[in-house]
Amino acid sequence: MNAFSGKNAKELENYHAQLKQKYDEYKSNNLKYDMSRGKPCKDQLDLTNELLDCLSSSDILKASDGTDCRNYGLLDGIPEAKELFSQMLGVSTKEIIIGGNSSLNIMYDTISRAITHGVLGSEIPWGKLPKVKFICPSPGYDRHFAICEFFGIEMIVVDMKEDGPDMDRVEELVASDESIKGIWCVPKYSNPDGIIYSDEVVDRFAALKPKAKDFRIFWDNAYCVHDLTDEPEELKNILEACKKAGNPNMVFIFASTSKISFPGAGISFFAASEENINYNKKHMFFQTIGHDKLNQLRHVKYFKNIDGIRKQMRKQASILKPKFDAVLDILQKELAGKNIAWWNSPKGGYFISLNTLDGCAAKVVKMAADAGVVLTKAGATFPYGKDPRDRNIRIAPTFPPMEELKTAIEILCICVQLASIETIIGK
Amino acid sequence: MNAFSGKNAKELENYHAQLKQKYDEYKSNNLKYDMSRGKPCKDQLDLTNELLDCLSSSDILKASDGTDCRNYGLLDGIPEAKELFSQMLGVSTKEIIIGGNSSLNIMYDTISRAITHGVLGSEIPWGKLPKVKFICPSPGYDRHFAICEFFGIEMIVVDMKEDGPDMDRVEELVASDESIKGIWCVPKYSNPDGIIYSDEVVDRFAALKPKAKDFRIFWDNAYCVHDLTDEPEELKNILEACKKAGNPNMVFIFASTSKISFPGAGISFFAASEENINYNKKHMFFQTIGHDKLNQLRHVKYFKNIDGIRKQMRKQASILKPKFDAVLDILQKELAGKNIAWWNSPKGGYFISLNTLDGCAAKVVKMAADAGVVLTKAGATFPYGKDPRDRNIRIAPTFPPMEELKTAIEILCICVQLASIETIIGK
Repeated sequence: MNAFSGKNAKELENYHAQLKQKYDEYKSNNLKYDMSRGKPCKDQLDLTNELLDCLSSSDILKASDGTDCRNYGLLDGIPEAKELFSQMLGVSTKEIIIGGNSSLNIMYDTISRAITHGVLGSEIPWGKLPKVKFICPSPGYDRHFAICEFFGIEMIVVDMKEDGPDMDRVEELVASDESIKGIWCVPKYSNPDGIIYSDEVVDRFAALKPKAKDFRIFWDNAYCVHDLTDEPEELKNILEACKKAGNPNMVFIFASTSKISFPGAGISFFAASEENINYNKKHMFFQTIGHDKLNQLRHVKYFKNIDGIRKQMRKQASILKPKFDAVLDILQKELAGKNIAWWNSPKGGYFISLNTLDGCAAKVVKMAADAGVVLTKAGATFPYGKDPRDRNIRIAPTFPPMEELKTAIEILCICVQLASIETIIGK
Repeated sequence: MNAFSGKNAKELENYHAQLKQKYDEYKSNNLKYDMSRGKPCKDQLDLTNELLDCLSSSDILKASDGTDCRNYGLLDGIPEAKELFSQMLGVSTKEIIIGGNSSLNIMYDTISRAITHGVLGSEIPWGKLPKVKFICPSPGYDRHFAICEFFGIEMIVVDMKEDGPDMDRVEELVASDESIKGIWCVPKYSNPDGIIYSDEVVDRFAALKPKAKDFRIFWDNAYCVHDLTDEPEELKNILEACKKAGNPNMVFIFASTSKISFPGAGISFFAASEENINYNKKHMFFQTIGHDKLNQLRHVKYFKNIDGIRKQMRKQASILKPKFDAVLDILQKELAGKNIAWWNSPKGGYFISLNTLDGCAAKVVKMAADAGVVLTKAGATFPYGKDPRDRNIRIAPTFPPMEELKTAIEILCICVQLASIETIIGK
């Protein structure tokens, strides 16, 4: 089907003029809406406020092993935090390390140490090799790609399909190129597509036969419990799958409470085989004596158990679901059937991924910005910030209040249509 | 003077037998005292408990610039934390970054980034050079040396004098060897000697003319406000001195509240010239979106202002001073005038540094351990864990309760004497 099928050039010109008028009206309102990042909104943050009250000077400030959480010690976290969050990740308490307030920080540190020292099984540090490459299923998470770029790791784009990365291509690449040392994955509600990797994809990951013996899957399970529906799809357990496939050490798992409790003051997690954990702890020793144990204790007291986390996530969903629905409704109303835009309807996570006609995304993002709506930079979801087809726009519906969000998406839909018409009629 | 001057071999044998009897008595008590690390004791931690109560769900959780401290953002910290702690360090608010709960972590990260990317002014990353060396005034802090060892940085020992490192040697080394990229300093109440660098030493540091253009002074001002007396000596401001000497970018300053508030849940600081700060922030961007801002807010609300910090440190001193005095009294009583041991009487910090006869330290530490008193490993205060004269023992008086401490030091004094006699008479 052609874009705007049924409309001829003249009709498109007229429609463009109508849209332009609407656009200019919005523009004259001097809006300042920021939809650039996947930030929780105030109502979401308020959900967790009692976290601030659940640890006071009258409490026992000791971990279950007797360690005074105020003092130095426990490099890998307090036992009760390992207990609770290992359940969330489906690993054992020996397969988890509790970190600081940011899983991004753990990911960065993991790569940084791989560069300077290698990972378990590395013959030499990655930084001593002539070339290190990572596979980057795209669109993906800009911060992952930024870490690679910072360390000079060459990124190889692999397409995302409906059930995860193009595994034929992934298998072929890792089997043939020893310089490929890793792959970035957001396996549940992928950033930005909202895809859940199928069991088959997980199993194919676990069964990879990389040429590089120290190849690692960087499994950023950022949205592991971030469901928007009551019947979430399950993600197959990658660590178990890797063990079954005889590759127990091939995966590094990352997660945090950033979008469960507080983005600025949560706790983060690293999970992997016991061998990987022990190896990494030996390296971590040089970096810190231990992360903030009082905040770990606070989180355990607040959530109590895995049901506490699930309950919290249902509250989060009750705020987020209407926002996702509002965005999807407007996209449907304004763009559906025009063959100029395609989007997903995610069952969780933080983003809606919108694809325009080829060559339109950067223009749309600029037009929206000119009208006061700041979106994620076009291209940000691809390595080096370069979307080869210039078509992907990441919509982050969580932060703006509902009315702002609706207006912003209406403006976005106008911009998409304007840019599409201009592309079609060569304006 | 000879050791045990006045005592002949026979008398020493007898005295050894007496001491051995006492030692065996202590040994039979199956003590378990840990004096291995400079950890605050429970009473010290209790001083800060109200920190846990000063931020609750009913508070405004915004930083002074309006940022919601619960959410993402503010890579370099909240403005009011910069305001307060820049005063503590004697720098401007543009010359400080607020970190996570550990200054060790900032130091590690700073070196790690220097290895992978270099520092401001580096022509190539340090890790790409055939050799990188650091000057390590010794005795010093084992964790500093451990970072160097982890990154394969060669350590050059320089002696500590009464007013700081041997600056003749430091000047000579940095001026002649381009591979020397840094020097570790604990300029106030140095770990373990308790030395305060004199104004002259600070000025000579500031005026260094290193052959390496990207040479840095790693100024770990861990004990900047950790005075034990009411009239503390002042440490000259290194950043100001560096500016005056035309070397504004030559120093990196580190500090934390680990021994002001809680070791496990404090906040840490990095201070340097604005140029260094801006350069480092660009690198930090890849690692994190920002550190725990609620804990920063908590600290500012708790201390309120620089006087609040000073008041807190007087309370800390009221707990620590009697412990330092007790150690010094026992050392004086048991070891003075025997020419077998020398120690400092620090006016602040966390340690008392004890030097034995050459070749005795490892033996003393082992004997003490056998009697149930765990001291810092002998040699730990030197690079590679090797004390060339095997004589330095780091006493950490803060953690044990007073009675344990006294017993432990009595045992230590017996061990020092036993080992000394054995050395003298060749037993």
